[in-house]
Amino acid sequence: MNFPSKLIEQAVMELNRLPGIGKKTALRLALNILNRPEEDAEALGNALIKLRKQIQYCQTCFNISDESICAICNNPSRKKETICVVESMRDVIAIENTNQYYGVYHVLGGCISPIDGIGPEQLNIEALTARVADGNVSEIILALSPTMEGDTTLYYLSKQLEEHDIKLTTLARGVSFGGELQYVDELTLGRSLATRRPYNNMI
Amino acid sequence: MNFPSKLIEQAVMELNRLPGIGKKTALRLALNILNRPEEDAEALGNALIKLRKQIQYCQTCFNISDESICAICNNPSRKKETICVVESMRDVIAIENTNQYYGVYHVLGGCISPIDGIGPEQLNIEALTARVADGNVSEIILALSPTMEGDTTLYYLSKQLEEHDIKLTTLARGVSFGGELQYVDELTLGRSLATRRPYNNMI
Repeated sequence: MNFPSKLIEQAVMELNRLPGIGKKTALRLALNILNRPEEDAEALGNALIKLRKQIQYCQTCFNISDESICAICNNPSRKKETICVVESMRDVIAIENTNQYYGVYHVLGGCISPIDGIGPEQLNIEALTARVADGNVSEIILALSPTMEGDTTLYYLSKQLEEHDIKLTTLARGVSFGGELQYVDELTLGRSLATRRPYNNMI
Repeated sequence: MNFPSKLIEQAVMELNRLPGIGKKTALRLALNILNRPEEDAEALGNALIKLRKQIQYCQTCFNISDESICAICNNPSRKKETICVVESMRDVIAIENTNQYYGVYHVLGGCISPIDGIGPEQLNIEALTARVADGNVSEIILALSPTMEGDTTLYYLSKQLEEHDIKLTTLARGVSFGGELQYVDELTLGRSLATRRPYNNMI
């Protein structure tokens, strides 16, 4: 693609490096920015630069944060005895949006995946065992993705934590709300049959 | 959606204002920027700010440009007697990519559309008639979109330019390359039958 201006070429090239943004979409975004007031372009550009420059990671739970301790860890009404272990801050946002969890988090920063060269030492596992060794933790919820890598990490973490006297739980697996039973994969359906629960109003 | 950090909230909100970028995509883009080196975020942010601040419009053809006269108008090997009238700079890029056109352009900045409150005076039509009145123009190619608004603008321009002794042409309309005849809409197929051409190697 030939561009009539170096400035637009530069902007399109940079936008094109974002995931899921092809050249045509990048051009559409750049033209949209051109059609909007100058302040909008500045607000967007500066928000992105500031995001990368000023972001911090919480020293306790490794969630992203504006300060050295994140708002969740700093909140006195959150139960510090329950730690929910997740892969990334995206999972923190997802769980927070359920409004069902009042404990704190621990962000691993990924899953054990030998194929991608990610071993336990690349993840924030040591900090988690240190938090547990400090005492005051009664339950750890392992909320990892239901994938091969997630299951590997789950197993590794359970081995690391078994010496401590804490309750280890994982997310319930089963059929999703709203789905039709005939389209559920066999593994999920089989497991949800095997781990069936007594019927009550909570379902 | 609750965000663990004001910085990421700000970035997501700004990205969310771009066309076709929802909140979830905006979050994915923001996290991608977080995972890349600081220079990348700076390059992207500054490219967008510079684009909006430093862009100019060519004083002759109203195409976007880095200088007051764009590279196409400044190119001595382009034929200045032929002007291709288009709606936006996106059309300029599209036509340039065909490598089939060696004349110059005139960007209208839109089409006449009374419903959107766009009349002839909002477009760069006066500058076009001034270019034609200057003489030295032998052909004007009206390369507007085949829509109601495009046709209205086409008609208006043809009326404006009929007093001058120049050749007025429009893009050929007909069936596209690669399509199957059975799926072509009746209007296009009917018109391409009515305007059928003697067969030669050019098709």
